[in-house]
This record gives sequence, C-alpha cells and structure tokens, in this order.
Amino acid sequence: MSRVAYVNGRYMPHGEAAVHIEDRGYQFADGVYEVVLVQDGAMVDEMPHLDRLDRSLRELRIAPPMDRAPLRLVMRELVRRNRIRTGLIYMQVTRGVARRDHPFPENAVPAFVMTAKRIALPNVETVENGVKVVTIRDIRWERCDIKTVALLPNVLGKQHARENGAYEAWQVDDAGNVTEGTSTNAWIVSNAGELITRNADQGILNGITRLTLLKLAAREGLTFVERPFSVEEAKTAREAFISSATSFVTPVTQIDDTVIGNGKAGSLGLKLRDTYLAYAGGEGRTP
Amino acid sequence: MSRVAYVNGRYMPHGEAAVHIEDRGYQFADGVYEVVLVQDGAMVDEMPHLDRLDRSLRELRIAPPMDRAPLRLVMRELVRRNRIRTGLIYMQVTRGVARRDHPFPENAVPAFVMTAKRIALPNVETVENGVKVVTIRDIRWERCDIKTVALLPNVLGKQHARENGAYEAWQVDDAGNVTEGTSTNAWIVSNAGELITRNADQGILNGITRLTLLKLAAREGLTFVERPFSVEEAKTAREAFISSATSFVTPVTQIDDTVIGNGKAGSLGLKLRDTYLAYAGGEGRTP
Repeated sequence: MSRVAYVNGRYMPHGEAAVHIEDRGYQFADGVYEVVLVQDGAMVDEMPHLDRLDRSLRELRIAPPMDRAPLRLVMRELVRRNRIRTGLIYMQVTRGVARRDHPFPENAVPAFVMTAKRIALPNVETVENGVKVVTIRDIRWERCDIKTVALLPNVLGKQHARENGAYEAWQVDDAGNVTEGTSTNAWIVSNAGELITRNADQGILNGITRLTLLKLAAREGLTFVERPFSVEEAKTAREAFISSATSFVTPVTQIDDTVIGNGKAGSLGLKLRDTYLAYAGGEGRTP
Repeated sequence: MSRVAYVNGRYMPHGEAAVHIEDRGYQFADGVYEVVLVQDGAMVDEMPHLDRLDRSLRELRIAPPMDRAPLRLVMRELVRRNRIRTGLIYMQVTRGVARRDHPFPENAVPAFVMTAKRIALPNVETVENGVKVVTIRDIRWERCDIKTVALLPNVLGKQHARENGAYEAWQVDDAGNVTEGTSTNAWIVSNAGELITRNADQGILNGITRLTLLKLAAREGLTFVERPFSVEEAKTAREAFISSATSFVTPVTQIDDTVIGNGKAGSLGLKLRDTYLAYAGGEGRTP
C-alpha cells in the first residue's frame, strides 16, 4: 500500500509530497509540529495536542492553517487513507513561502503538512528490561517550551545516544539538573517512593503524555512533585523512566554506567504504564 | 525574467523548485547553508565560503553533496541563467530525505539546493547616517559557530529589531557581552581608536567578511583585538558597525536609545568599508 500525505490542501502520494525550497520551515526552521498517537484507529489525547499546537503557533505568531474542525477531518481522512490501526499522525505548520529574508514576511500563507504512518509500540522485552540513557550537556536554545522544528540539537543528542548503545539521551543544564530527553520527558522515583519530574518552564517541552501522567498520578493518589533533579539524584533513584506520546512510559534501567534499582523495570513505572494504557484505550481516546 | 533554481542535480523554474516533506532540513533543521556575494558577475570570497561550508558539514557529519569543482560550475551556471550582476548565491545542504526519526538515517543522500537572486546593496544614505541596533538576550543554542538552518531565534531577533525601528538586533550573553547580530557580526571602535570584535568561539558564527576585515585591518596597520565587549562599552564607544557578506561594513549610529559618537558614520568604519570594497572589487574576486 502506498502512503498518502496531506500538503497545503491536497492529498497526494507520499513520494510526491513536496514543499517549496523557500518554505521558511526549510530555510529558517520557522515552524512547529505535533505528533498524535493513533491506537485502534482512534486518536489519543487529541485535544491537548491540538491545544499545544495552537500555543506553539501563538508563541511564534504564525496564523493557524485551518480551523480545528476541518483539521480533525484531515487527521481522520489520513488515518483512513493510510489504513492506520496503530501509528501516529505527524503535522507541521510553517510560516509559509517567501523570498528569503529573516523578518516575518508580510503576506506569507502558513504551510501545512500532515502525514500518518504505522509504528511498532515498545515491545514487552524493552518494557521489562528497561532502556539505557546517557547524559549529555543541554546545548539547546532557551525556548524549548515551544515545539518547533529547530530540532538539530535533539538530532545530535539522539545520535550520540545511539552511538553509545543507549535508547535516549538526557540533557543536563548548567546546574547539573536533567532537563529532558531529546524526544521524551524524564522521570525518577525517589527512594521514599515519590514521583519526580522537572517542572515545565521554558527549558523543557511540556509533554502531553507528561501532563496526562501527572493527572493520572493525582487521581491514583500517588505522591509526586514537579521539580528539577540532578544526574546524581537520578543515578541513586529507586526507579527512572521516560514518557512520550509514542513510548508511553518506558522504564530506564541504566543511566550512563550506573544500573538503576535492580536493573529491571520498577514497579511504580510499570503501574503508571498500565494506568496510562488503560487511559489511552478508554477516556483518552477520540474516535 | 523568471528565476532558475538548482535542486538535487536539476535546474528548474524557481516557482517549481521543491524538496520532499521528509527532507530532514524541513523536519529537523538538519542542514547548513552559505551565502556568497556576487559583484559584477564575480564571486566575492568564494573559497573561504566553500571552506566554511565544508567545515559546517563536517561538524554535522553530513557528506559533501558534490566536489568543489562541479559545485563552482553550478554557482556560475546559476549566475548566468539568472543574469546576476549584483546579487547573492544561496546554497543549502541537508542530511537528505528519510522516514522521520531523530538519529542520522543509514542511507540518506544529502540534499543540495542552490538559488541566485539580485539584491540592492546598502545605499549611500544608509552608510552615511548609519543604522540603529537594539540589544536582545542571546537565547540561541551553544553551537552558533556552525552555519545551520536552525535560524528560528535569529528570525525572532530580526523581527524584534524591525518592530523597534532597528536594522539589526545585537544578541547579549549572560555576562552582558554582545555576541553578534542575527545575521551580522558586531564591531566597535574604542575611544583609543582600537578596533574590537568578539573572538570567534562557539558562541558566534565566524563571518567570512569578519575574517577578511581582520586581514585587511592587519595589512593596513590598524590596532585591533578580538575579545568580548559589553553593551555598556559599545554604547560609549567612538564608533560601531556591523559586517556581513551582503552589508560589507555598515555603520551603527544608535544602540537602543543611545546615539553613538556624533550620530554619523565613524571614520574608521568608513575607511574599512572602502578598503573592503576595493578588496571585493579586486583580489577578493573569483571570476
């Protein structure tokens, strides 16, 4: 089956889907994106993702490319045309095409691209054994709260992780605290059993899955706190895990050379993962 | 006359020049660029620009899209097809097209786009009266020495300048020192007549015009030093100016609300500008 993409108002074969070379996304990273999980053909946390897209656009003063109702129709049409049961929707909005010049162009029309693809979810072995993360210096800009396509430092960080046998890299700020992974949020469980994840300031992307997990943790009566934690604190934590729309909760069992806990997925992480999966399979869905 | 662009081995009408939506330049800002000035149909500082392109590619571990000799032929063919006498060549290399995933793809072929356009050089009035700059916090990542397309912070800075009646924004680091403009290097002349520009560390792009100006200054026997300077030092300087491939030396006569010198272009800046123009019209050219 050949993939179908949506580009500026048209559905087209994925292989032919193109944007102009002077699209500001290509020349200036002047755009934002979202990734929405599709499970059993339904969207997970769709509205929070679309709310965050709106926020990113507002922060960069890019006009929304279309109203939410038709946008949601495009999402569904893409899922249908690509026959996605489990997968993701990727959408990107840029400031549009204009003669190359740094300031905002006067009359550019935002460009809007959407794709959908099947993905494999983390397998049981990955979940039970957990993954390794390595720590790297956070060299990114100071507005990581905006979900922009200026992802080059994240690319370099993820590549560093791969070359060091790790699934993810945790970025560390000047104070020695973990900000987040290159495409995931970072969590630990203290030896007192407290769930800890960095507070959402301009230094991290406020993950939708992160927000949902906090909501579910509160509902479950778990003790949690949003605050920075150091690499040292993480390495001596009882548990660690990462979260994202496509990895849910994935246990971390090694940070650099340090084994976390007993080297197997921690119980609180697994419990949160199950809670999240139930949510994603139920109330978190929009058909 | 309709413009012609070069995209991945083909010359094509500018309006039809496109790249795939999964080009990593579009989704990850995973690419680099160069801008070369064309004067009287000749290239200015061509080799240093191509050397810097090679360095940027090496830093990101992207393979060169073609050897230098054919690349130089493409530059000349574009100048010819677009009938450029005074203008610029823009070239961009990205890691290529791949299914979206952060790490470097295994087998992607670098994408290569080149355009040429006519530009107007700064007019006499701009040069004589100088321009205004505003100061902003430098919020960029920590590898500004690589000329990447992850230019979103530069876009936001330049837009801020425009909205505040300024030609450029000077970015200021945590120590209160000026790093550089959003698309230019920053210079001042001390009251002792010393030429000062920030040393080229990872916090700034080492401008080709900056390097040429330093070479010319040395040849002219001018006193100069490469070191950080503060906003305060700049505001009390005798002169200030900016440099770039397309603005050469452009005097700065206002920084925020402070008038520099007597509010007219300073003599050392004008002298350097003339020296640079002679260079660009002579030894700096490759036909």
